[in-house]
Order: sequence, then C-alpha cells, then structure tokens
Amino acid sequence: MAVLLEEFHPIFYPRSIAVVGASANEGKAGSKWVRGLLAAGFEGRVYPVSSGGGTLSGLEIYPNLRAVPDEVDYVVASVPRQSVLALLDDCAVKRVQAIQFFTAGFSETGTADGRKMEAQMVKKARQNGIRIIGPNCIGVYCPESRLPLGPSPLGKLGTSGSVGFISQSGGIAAKLAEIGIARHINFSKVVSFGNGIDLDASDFLQYLAADPKTSVIGAYLEGTRDGHRLFHTIKGVAKAKPVIVWKGGRTEVGAQAATSHTGSLASSAAVWAAMLTQAGAIEVHGLEELSDALLIFQALGRWKGNNVAVIGGLADGGGGISVSASDSCTEMGLDMPPLSHQTGEALTRLLGEVGSILRNPVDVSQAPNRDPTALSQAIQLVMEDPVIEAMIVQEDLDTFLSYSSSAELERVNDFFVRLGHAHSKPLIIVLPPGSAEPERLSLEQRLLQASIPTFPTMERAAKALARINGYNGRS
Amino acid sequence: MAVLLEEFHPIFYPRSIAVVGASANEGKAGSKWVRGLLAAGFEGRVYPVSSGGGTLSGLEIYPNLRAVPDEVDYVVASVPRQSVLALLDDCAVKRVQAIQFFTAGFSETGTADGRKMEAQMVKKARQNGIRIIGPNCIGVYCPESRLPLGPSPLGKLGTSGSVGFISQSGGIAAKLAEIGIARHINFSKVVSFGNGIDLDASDFLQYLAADPKTSVIGAYLEGTRDGHRLFHTIKGVAKAKPVIVWKGGRTEVGAQAATSHTGSLASSAAVWAAMLTQAGAIEVHGLEELSDALLIFQALGRWKGNNVAVIGGLADGGGGISVSASDSCTEMGLDMPPLSHQTGEALTRLLGEVGSILRNPVDVSQAPNRDPTALSQAIQLVMEDPVIEAMIVQEDLDTFLSYSSSAELERVNDFFVRLGHAHSKPLIIVLPPGSAEPERLSLEQRLLQASIPTFPTMERAAKALARINGYNGRS
Repeated sequence: MAVLLEEFHPIFYPRSIAVVGASANEGKAGSKWVRGLLAAGFEGRVYPVSSGGGTLSGLEIYPNLRAVPDEVDYVVASVPRQSVLALLDDCAVKRVQAIQFFTAGFSETGTADGRKMEAQMVKKARQNGIRIIGPNCIGVYCPESRLPLGPSPLGKLGTSGSVGFISQSGGIAAKLAEIGIARHINFSKVVSFGNGIDLDASDFLQYLAADPKTSVIGAYLEGTRDGHRLFHTIKGVAKAKPVIVWKGGRTEVGAQAATSHTGSLASSAAVWAAMLTQAGAIEVHGLEELSDALLIFQALGRWKGNNVAVIGGLADGGGGISVSASDSCTEMGLDMPPLSHQTGEALTRLLGEVGSILRNPVDVSQAPNRDPTALSQAIQLVMEDPVIEAMIVQEDLDTFLSYSSSAELERVNDFFVRLGHAHSKPLIIVLPPGSAEPERLSLEQRLLQASIPTFPTMERAAKALARINGYNGRS
Repeated sequence: MAVLLEEFHPIFYPRSIAVVGASANEGKAGSKWVRGLLAAGFEGRVYPVSSGGGTLSGLEIYPNLRAVPDEVDYVVASVPRQSVLALLDDCAVKRVQAIQFFTAGFSETGTADGRKMEAQMVKKARQNGIRIIGPNCIGVYCPESRLPLGPSPLGKLGTSGSVGFISQSGGIAAKLAEIGIARHINFSKVVSFGNGIDLDASDFLQYLAADPKTSVIGAYLEGTRDGHRLFHTIKGVAKAKPVIVWKGGRTEVGAQAATSHTGSLASSAAVWAAMLTQAGAIEVHGLEELSDALLIFQALGRWKGNNVAVIGGLADGGGGISVSASDSCTEMGLDMPPLSHQTGEALTRLLGEVGSILRNPVDVSQAPNRDPTALSQAIQLVMEDPVIEAMIVQEDLDTFLSYSSSAELERVNDFFVRLGHAHSKPLIIVLPPGSAEPERLSLEQRLLQASIPTFPTMERAAKALARINGYNGRS
C-alpha cells in the first residue's frame, strides 16, 4: 500500500510539472494547459516547453525538456505523435517520474503502426522507470493539489473531497468534474487514462483503494485488454470501498464507437454486467445514474436501510405526488412502512385529523392553516419514528411559490438544513424542475452545500438510495 | 362531434364565471381563484360569491349565486362540503351549465357518507342538465380563453398550443402546466377532474379527440370506475390522435395512496400496461417521460423514422460521448446507420480525414482548427444524407465554454435554429446540465422557442424519439 501511494505521488502531488507543447501561441492545447495550471493556483513549479522559446503568461519557455533548470516530477505532453519516443528519451535524462500524453493517434486508429508505437513507448518507459498515463487522454484532476483537468485555460477546480473517479474517456471525466462542481460531488482524484498502455484501470483502482483521501470510487470503462486482472482488481477494491461502474459500449454500435475511441475490445453487455455483479461493483447506466450514485455514497457513507418515509404536500396538493412517489420508491425496492402507532397518535394530536396523515407517504398539506410550527413538528415526528430509516421530502417550488411566499420558503429550508444536521438519519430532498428554475437552482445549491443530497425527481432519489443497499463491502 | 364540442364549450370558453367561496378575505382559496382569473386577463365576466358580501379586487361580492345579475355559464365551487347540494339547487335556478368542485371530502375519504353524497350530487346535476367536474379537483386550464389553473392568485398562463392533458391529480396537472411554461409544451386544454363523479376520463378524452385545437393527448390516471368504457374510449381516441398515459398507483403502496387520493380502484400494473398497449395508447412512467413524450409529439407530429445520426464533439472530446450516445440510441430501439458513401466522400473532402468521421456517431471535433464554416457544412451534409431520418446533436456547454467563446456559442446555435427551420427532418438537441446552468437554461429557452426539441440527456432524447414509432393511429 505504502509503495503504491508513493509511486502515484508524483502524479497527483507533483512538485513540478513541465508542459511540453506549450508555446507563445496561447491558443495551442499545451499553452492552455499552462494557463489552466496558473489560473487554478497550482502551487508547484510550472515549466512550458516548446522549441520556439519565448514566454507564456510571464513564464520562460524552454526549448526542450532537458533545458529545464530544475527537477521535473511530471510531464504533460501535447506533442506530435512522431515526437513521443524522443520525448521519452528526454524524460529518462531528466529522471521524470510520470508522463501524461494528450497526444493521440495510436491504437485507437486501428492501425498496426499505432499499436507498434504504443509497444515502443511502454518498453522505453519501463526501461527508465517512467509511468505513462494515456496516450489519448486529458490526465489527472486533483483539487487538493490544485491540479485542474485537461487543456482548459479556465483551470476550474471544485472542492476537494472523498470521491475518486477513473475514466477511459476524457470528455466524460471532464463532464463529471463539471457536474461535481454543480452538485457538490467533491473529488479526491479524477483520472482520464485514455488508451491506458501502461497505467490502466486496474492500477488506478488499486491506487484509489489505497488512497486515504478516497472513500467511494467511480469508473467509466469501455473495455479492457486484461479482463481477468480487472475482474480481480475490482473484486479486491470493492471489498474496501464502494465501486460504481458505468460501462460504455454496451451495444454493438456503442462497442464499435469504443474501439475507435480508445482501441478497447468491448465485450457484450451481459458479460460485463455479470462480471461487475460478481466482483461486487455497482453498475450504473449513464452520467445521471453515475453522478446520482456518487452523490449518495458521498453523503451517506456506509448507511444501510430500506424503510423510507416520504413527505409531500408541503405547499398544497400532495395527492398525485404521493401516489407517484410510492410507485417510484416501491419499484426501486424500498419499503414505505406505515408509521408507528406512537407517531400516528402524536401527528393526530398535532394536526387534528386522523385520515390519510397516518399513512406513508405523509401528505402534510392537511396541517391546519399551514401553520409552520405544526408543519415542522409533524416532519420532525416522522423523522424520529423508530420505524423510519430515511426520509425523502418532495419540495415543489412551483406549487410552493404559487401558494406561499419566498420568506416562507426560506424558513422551511432553514428548518430542513437544521433537521439534516441534527439527525444521522438520511434526509433527501427532491426538487422537481418547473418554471421557477433560478429559485430552484439556488435552493439546490443551498441544500447541497449543507450536505443534503438533492435530486430533481423522486425516481432518481429512490434509485440512488436503493443502490446503497447494493454495496456489500466491509463496513 | 359537434354536440360534444358544444357541450364542453361553457367549460373551456365560458362567457361568465361565478366563484362561490370567494370572499373579502384575500387568502381564501376562492378569493385566490378570482384574483388568478383577473391576473390572467380572463376576458369573460367574473362574479365572486360569498355570504359575507363586500368587495374583492374591486369586484362586488354577491351573497349567493342567485343574486348574480347575469347569466352564469360556469361555477367554481370552493365551499364547505355540507353546502354542495344547496349550491347545485342554486345552479339549477341560474341555469348554470357546468360546475367544478374544488371542495373535497367525498368518496376519497373511504366513507359510506362520502359515496352517498357523490351519488346525490350526480342525481341533482343530471336532473338539471348541469355537468360536474370533480369534486376534489382544481378544474380546467385553457390559455386560449385565458383560464388559469387552480386557486393561485398569480394566474399564470403558458402559450396556447395543441397539447391536451387530463389528470386525476390536481398537483400533477398544475406541475405539468408549469413544466409546459418552462419547456414550451403548449397546451390547448388541461383538466384536473379529481373524483370524476360525472365527467370523467372517458368524457374528457372524447372531447379532446373531437377538439380541433388538440393534436396530442396526455393523461395521468390512477384508476377508473368503468374500465370497460375507458378501454374502448382510449382505443377510439388513439386511432385519431396519439394518447400518452401515465398510470399512477402501479405498485401496491401507490395504489393504496391512490384510493385515499381520488377514491379510485387501481388494479395491477400489468393489467393496465396490457390494456393501454391493446388500446393503442403509449404508456410512460413519471413526469419526465410524460413531458418528454408530449414535447416530441408536439414538435414532430406524425413523423416516423428510425435512422438517426448523432453529432458529437462540437467543442472538443466527443469520444466517450459518442460511445454512450450509441448505447442510448440503440438501447431505445433506434438505428444509427453508417452515412451514405456520398456523404462520406463529401465529409472527407471537407474535413480532410477519412477515419472515424465517416461513422455514425459523427465526431466533428476533427474539423481542422474548428473552422466554423467547415463545421456547419459538415453538419448540413449529415442532415441532408438520404439515409438519415433525424439528427441528434450533443451540445455540451461546459466543454464548449472551456474551449470556445460565448460569441462562437451564439453563432453555432444561430446555425442550428436556421438548420431546424430549413429542414422538415427532425433536429433534436441534447444539452446536458453541468456547471454553466444559467447559460444552459437560456440556450434551452432559445432552442425550444425555435421549436427545436431539447433534452437534458441523450437517454431521454432517444427514448422520446423512439416513442413516436410506438404510435400507430391514422396519419
């Protein structure tokens, strides 16, 4: 473990980075990479390298890697494919520990030449103790060390957190990082490893399993060159931490696209699904399910449970919502047990009506005059019911703002934030989109910031919550 | 048909409305109803009725319905349940044509008394030629006649359009109306009919089938008192217009909630699914699928097709997106055929590369220097390929804004709007959420306003498009 962490240290925590292919032309990918590192406030040293020399963002550009007057831990390579072997020779001279190739045009083109070049790259790297990330990838993202992802001059960084993610697709890694910023899914590390000719999915999974900063692991995979090793790696890793896998290229057309994308052999969806289940991983389909699962594992950790209470009718008209919420939860395998007798009696005393209020879903629109104190007491009673293991609240802003004020909305959500903090029981909020999008987005930010998992639909909330029970690793 | 249209005319196009239960207290539901009608600019006459008298929003309040010095076409009743029979007597005196009861507390409470009262209401109404909507419902919405939905003082109205919707749940009707405003799903009529003791799902479906303003019909149903009639009605209606049904209460817990919501007997999901398929309706699950289906039927009318081209990589890194787009389309039953030889050659001439560009999905990130002219010509070539029947474009704003400017984004979307207008072939745009939500929402508005169906995920776009082929009515 210690060896593994040490080996990957220069990749995620480099003291110095050289970007080869970063010239005085600010529009080039390498130049954008340097601008992104500076914009992100990367605290190590950054060295642009390009034969033309000159300066970039106030930094001297070195004509080649050997000319850099400092040790270089990590190299980002955005160079023509003909130059990769020569660059690896320079890396050997400079005792570079790891190099990431943005450069593409290798095995993913389907040519014998592409495969041959990759073999030569690996040979040279191994002879000189250099690890390769890629080629055909956008590399690593580590908010903790202020390393932004890919050649964007914006150098965007989210909050540092506990979610690790590896991806065969740079586009999907970049998109998930953006979704992370929006939904407060906070990453420890993200890696796009493209063709994975040296370090591949199995290596990065082992690293994230060992990494003390990471508590849940996601992966976008298209295929693998060594299915046997990947299976055993996932099986081992999933014992320690939840592993959530999105397999791209499940269909024939998708698999064809995958071959030309990262040169992977994608086998059938059924084989993958069976393999992932057997290895103890959780399979998701698509970016929404992936981000929903990461969000809920980040928030709920090792919680397990099935007995959910659903609260509807916060503003008005909770009937149809309650019906469909019941369908969603039940179809996802969650239980919605009746509330305990004690809770029922206390609710009756509080709300003065015996009817549907005792059932679950709980339609609080019956609260007399929508008295805010009675409403929050009723919700608290349900939260404290010993039968209930998690609570999902349907909060519809369109309805709320049609019948109530913004100030009241603020008060209700202050209450939810306090309730979420006061209880170890999960509180999840569903905020369906509608015609009050700016208000909805700002409320969503507020709840997510308070670590309350928030979803746009009951279906997605229920599906995410139900997934937690699908993880059977050590607790 | 003519009789049917005439019978429903006072409901959707009343010349005068009396709101019984609208008092000088602005906070009461009836009072909000009157305020909503005024805010919406309803052009007929509005009469608040309440025993206390006084004024409301400058209107004189009449002590009872008989005191209204005018003909009353339509009554909205927000009165205590003990008063409903007396109110129906007044309606008979005033020759009111239809009455909607917001009042609840009948069969949905599960009591014999509730059922008995409903029977008395129906008897009285039929004796006097009055049609009942409800009870336990929020009534009708008709943007064309400026009738807003339910007791909201805001009186929100969307654009008048061709989508009809009926719902056993007021909450879901209201929410769908809001989603309609946000997503430019433009309604001809929306009806929440609650317990449906007189006019029920079958009646409103028959009306919408006859209504020349309606071209596609949606329904949220929980159960029915007359399954046989409903089946034959849907079967007839679906021959003329697409009928999209969301059945709530599919699960046991959901069905229990449905019984206490609208007093319906909800039978098993499988029975409903079989019935809907046999009747030629299209079944959806949940509000997202329902609104996606209505949006696509509204936009594409009677288009049919399977051969889809997917465009990715508008800004950068289309690889993983192309793979997962292929999975989504194929899993939904759409085909992604290779482009024709001719298109392939023209693309090669334009983009100068023979590789993956000839495949479908088309990853346009290969365009040299992202030349905007070449990019738009390439997209146009794909659109014009005789093999291709519809085009889906993946437009990721996070990626776009990381690598390109807002001005360029504007130009690209100007092009899409022109392309959409110039071709009868469907153009669909996928705008996945991320960290640029305000920009994304404003672009979504722009595209939807230009009648380009827009979805947040490829999965939803593909699912919606594939549903069109599920409709087999007369074309």
